Amino acid sequence: MSQKDKNKKITIIVHSGDFDKIMSAFIIGNGFLSMGVDVSLFFTFWGLMALKKGGFKKAKLSRMNFCGLGKLMIKKRLKKYNVATIDELAKSFVELGGKIIACSMTMQLMGIKKEDLREDLVSEYGTVGRYCGETLKSESSLFI
Amino acid sequence: MSQKDKNKKITIIVHSGDFDKIMSAFIIGNGFLSMGVDVSLFFTFWGLMALKKGGFKKAKLSRMNFCGLGKLMIKKRLKKYNVATIDELAKSFVELGGKIIACSMTMQLMGIKKEDLREDLVSEYGTVGRYCGETLKSESSLFI
Amino acid sequence: MSQKDKNKKITIIVHSGDFDKIMSAFIIGNGFLSMGVDVSLFFTFWGLMALKKGGFKKAKLSRMNFCGLGKLMIKKRLKKYNVATIDELAKSFVELGGKIIACSMTMQLMGIKKEDLREDLVSEYGTVGRYCGETLKSESSLFI
Repeated sequence: MSQKDKNKKITIIVHSGDFDKIMSAFIIGNGFLSMGVDVSLFFTFWGLMALKKGGFKKAKLSRMNFCGLGKLMIKKRLKKYNVATIDELAKSFVELGGKIIACSMTMQLMGIKKEDLREDLVSEYGTVGRYCGETLKSESSLFI
Repeated sequence: MSQKDKNKKITIIVHSGDFDKIMSAFIIGNGFLSMGVDVSLFFTFWGLMALKKGGFKKAKLSRMNFCGLGKLMIKKRLKKYNVATIDELAKSFVELGGKIIACSMTMQLMGIKKEDLREDLVSEYGTVGRYCGETLKSESSLFI
Repeated sequence: MSQKDKNKKITIIVHSGDFDKIMSAFIIGNGFLSMGVDVSLFFTFWGLMALKKGGFKKAKLSRMNFCGLGKLMIKKRLKKYNVATIDELAKSFVELGGKIIACSMTMQLMGIKKEDLREDLVSEYGTVGRYCGETLKSESSLFI
């Protein structure tokens, strides 16, 4: 961990609910966290839907689904090569100090209650103003 | 509005023509504008198609469409919770001083004429060089 | 080329394997390169699948496919208006000094070997740590 990367920050909007894109968000988030960089993930729209209890299991690949076979194949390979599952990646993200912020507008719009969400993962609830404020203090921001 | 956030800039490429992603682009754009930050939205490909007259109405959700029911449900909830429609969000964006730039290469490629576009929203026409130049002066850039 | 833009850097993750998104990634990359900015494209997931030999030809539009007609129409228009194909854009990108980095985790996960990839385009193989390190030194980063 480089001392100069301390206090640096990255923000990521997780708009997509696709299996592979949520996985990417956590892999990138964990990558920055392991370098001592602060990371905030803002879950909105389909991304927030996937953060509901049991949501990671229902998440679909963004393409080449082969009637579900694509995801099965990837899950099998993830296991074979000891790559973490989304659930493990998300837990590591929180353990490494990453923040998961649920978009409160999406919650209202989609009728999602706090108890519907993975409360072990969500650390805060916020609006777009929160995202904008954090992004202005960040090195970069991604929309996934 | 914080004084130190004045003269800061954010650029966003709107490549997607999906209802929920265009909505996100304007919500994020308006969020930054209300903090005194300059925002430029560069509409390309399907995003620019949606900027044609009547295009916002035809925009589809990026997933879970339920034969159109998903979008109806979201529109109903938007109304119920007094969340602005895409059209209202876009007009606010322009009123708050946000710039909407139409990608001239996409216009040529897709055979889109100036009069096909929402001229009340588009402020300029530009190439990728324009986007790159503005992004180098920006805090962050998003690809939506 | 502005002297002050020298030594600036942009990183782009190409997660999508869609024809129009890969095209956008290279157009944006070439735009920055022509301004003297360093650009690294990190190909992951479906983006890396498209970087396999013959992959660009198989890439599909992200929407409005009309049974393949959409892509044919765009390819015809690209030719008519002398806009470069993905293959030409990619070769220009490399010639202008852009770096294409293949995600080694995706290679393992998807069972992709070095010889399966376009070795004339790929300059390096790297993990997420490589992406994070370069992004911390960058002006902006995009997730496409």
